[in-house]
Amino acid sequence: MSTLTNRQVRLAKRPEGAATRDDWQFTDEPVGEPAEGGVLVQTLSLSLDPAMRGWMNEGKSYIAPVEIGAVMRAGGVGRVVASRNPAFAVGDTVYGTLGVQQYALIPQEEIQRNGLVKIDLRAGTIGQWLNVLGMPGMTGYFGLMDVGQPKPGETVVVSGAAGAVGQTVGQLAKIKGCRVVGIAGGAAKCDWVVKELGFDACIDYKAGPLAVREGLKAHCPKGVDIYFDNVGGDILDTVLAKLARGARIIICGAISQYNNTTPVQGPKNYLSLLVNRARMQGMVVFDYADRYGEAVAELSGYLKDGRMKSREDVVEGIDTFPEALGRLFTGENFGKLVLKVSD
Amino acid sequence: MSTLTNRQVRLAKRPEGAATRDDWQFTDEPVGEPAEGGVLVQTLSLSLDPAMRGWMNEGKSYIAPVEIGAVMRAGGVGRVVASRNPAFAVGDTVYGTLGVQQYALIPQEEIQRNGLVKIDLRAGTIGQWLNVLGMPGMTGYFGLMDVGQPKPGETVVVSGAAGAVGQTVGQLAKIKGCRVVGIAGGAAKCDWVVKELGFDACIDYKAGPLAVREGLKAHCPKGVDIYFDNVGGDILDTVLAKLARGARIIICGAISQYNNTTPVQGPKNYLSLLVNRARMQGMVVFDYADRYGEAVAELSGYLKDGRMKSREDVVEGIDTFPEALGRLFTGENFGKLVLKVSD
Repeated sequence: MSTLTNRQVRLAKRPEGAATRDDWQFTDEPVGEPAEGGVLVQTLSLSLDPAMRGWMNEGKSYIAPVEIGAVMRAGGVGRVVASRNPAFAVGDTVYGTLGVQQYALIPQEEIQRNGLVKIDLRAGTIGQWLNVLGMPGMTGYFGLMDVGQPKPGETVVVSGAAGAVGQTVGQLAKIKGCRVVGIAGGAAKCDWVVKELGFDACIDYKAGPLAVREGLKAHCPKGVDIYFDNVGGDILDTVLAKLARGARIIICGAISQYNNTTPVQGPKNYLSLLVNRARMQGMVVFDYADRYGEAVAELSGYLKDGRMKSREDVVEGIDTFPEALGRLFTGENFGKLVLKVSD
Repeated sequence: MSTLTNRQVRLAKRPEGAATRDDWQFTDEPVGEPAEGGVLVQTLSLSLDPAMRGWMNEGKSYIAPVEIGAVMRAGGVGRVVASRNPAFAVGDTVYGTLGVQQYALIPQEEIQRNGLVKIDLRAGTIGQWLNVLGMPGMTGYFGLMDVGQPKPGETVVVSGAAGAVGQTVGQLAKIKGCRVVGIAGGAAKCDWVVKELGFDACIDYKAGPLAVREGLKAHCPKGVDIYFDNVGGDILDTVLAKLARGARIIICGAISQYNNTTPVQGPKNYLSLLVNRARMQGMVVFDYADRYGEAVAELSGYLKDGRMKSREDVVEGIDTFPEALGRLFTGENFGKLVLKVSD
């Protein structure tokens, strides 16, 4: 054990605007041994998520910021390589908050606080456990079902449609009998969302300044009953202008705003909520932790019977983390962005 | 009948920014006689409401705009002076959409479409029937109870606290066991809201640029559980920054924005909805028309037993309508603004 080295990515400073390589510090430390009740996990793959940008900022949010000098927070799949906890055996595959590092030494209290769950690779691949069966999938599932409460025949619009949350939301809404319109960047993503995932339509927001407005007009003739918002900004405003009576907007994220150095762009069409007796509601996936099991059971069934597909965009090597993360904010990733750390 | 003249206020043009006297046209017409099923109502008092500014604009909203040349829409209390409808007798006091005019000739189909209800002046004065027992009261009642769903011990903040909707919301929330903090303009209104209506505190938003922020900090130590928003703009943003987990924001209006010639100011702190798992929901009082009876019964009970008070700001004479309406947008009115047309 003592011969192993743990390469870690630590937050060097708080970025202004987009994060760059200068905001990170790479360290190499000897791998420690678990204390009573703890485990040592080797990182296999990490989930790279838009929310990470928020964790790098100072100040109160739904979760504490990552401290300067600390290993960057990340959820991931790993393999237990040493255990002093009876719930975990060497060789178990687990999902947990591993951090951007090759090995995570997780003490008992952290297992209790943050959770560490054994996962079954027969239910889904590692990529799928970070995607449809992981945090993005849970976010999409509970956001759509609990907050959105879709009814058959309703029109559901989802932004970031080719991303991890978007692909779950759209396919699940189709399964629930809704008409589904995605919004994504570029023809390739839109094609995939329609042809592979079976969305009714997908609007390429990069196709021109009026693309979203005209797309919604064409594809949502009865207005938008549910909008699952991952992006905020102008797209949120454009959808607000097309709400149906009694619409629900799920505020999951606002990736267009996360690198802002100016104040967040408020939705100037928010009074559409009044006119349409609509609501806009925020959600944080961690609130549903005690119900992940039910969502995983349902979603893995859809993966198995082919009603749901998934796509991951896998980047290899922990050293590529800074640039890999940046791909989320330019929209370069195509599918759930995964950082493969080891085999 | 034919000797009577009906003075009317008609929309001459659509205002840009604040409405002025130039936007109105006064006409004098002979009073007509009701056709089969119709009634003729003499206007006693009219309700002047912030929403009227929206009705003057072109374009789709929750209600059709007032056409150029048409009598301005207004709800009011009147007395039946002629009736060919068996449901109404001469001398009945009624509430309905009378318009800004001395006499309203209401055909049967309009009675059916818009409603015309007999009111009991033992349950409340004419002023109260336009205030706590009228549209503002219904708005406050259903907005707070149905959308806000207050629980005892929660902190409720209401803007426009001395206005018609605000006074209903705050007093009702107190009766329901909540801590209530008002926001109003000027020390006189704040004093009245606290000393007469029994709010726990009231913040004078005119007291300085940080008054609302500091007031919320002082008076809402556990954050804001319910915000009943009548004003929008900076105040909405400041409250968003102080939400408690699971907060509900009722979007009733945005008087700070109605005279804008620039786009509405979107709430740049809307991502607080996400962090706090909160929702922002619009409401339109007309949706609750079939439940007004239950609200009137409850609220008139509170007026009778003294648990609820009301205040009206009465302006006299139909000719003063343009300037009277303007008082709402400068905050000059103190209490529910009523235009008394005749005795």
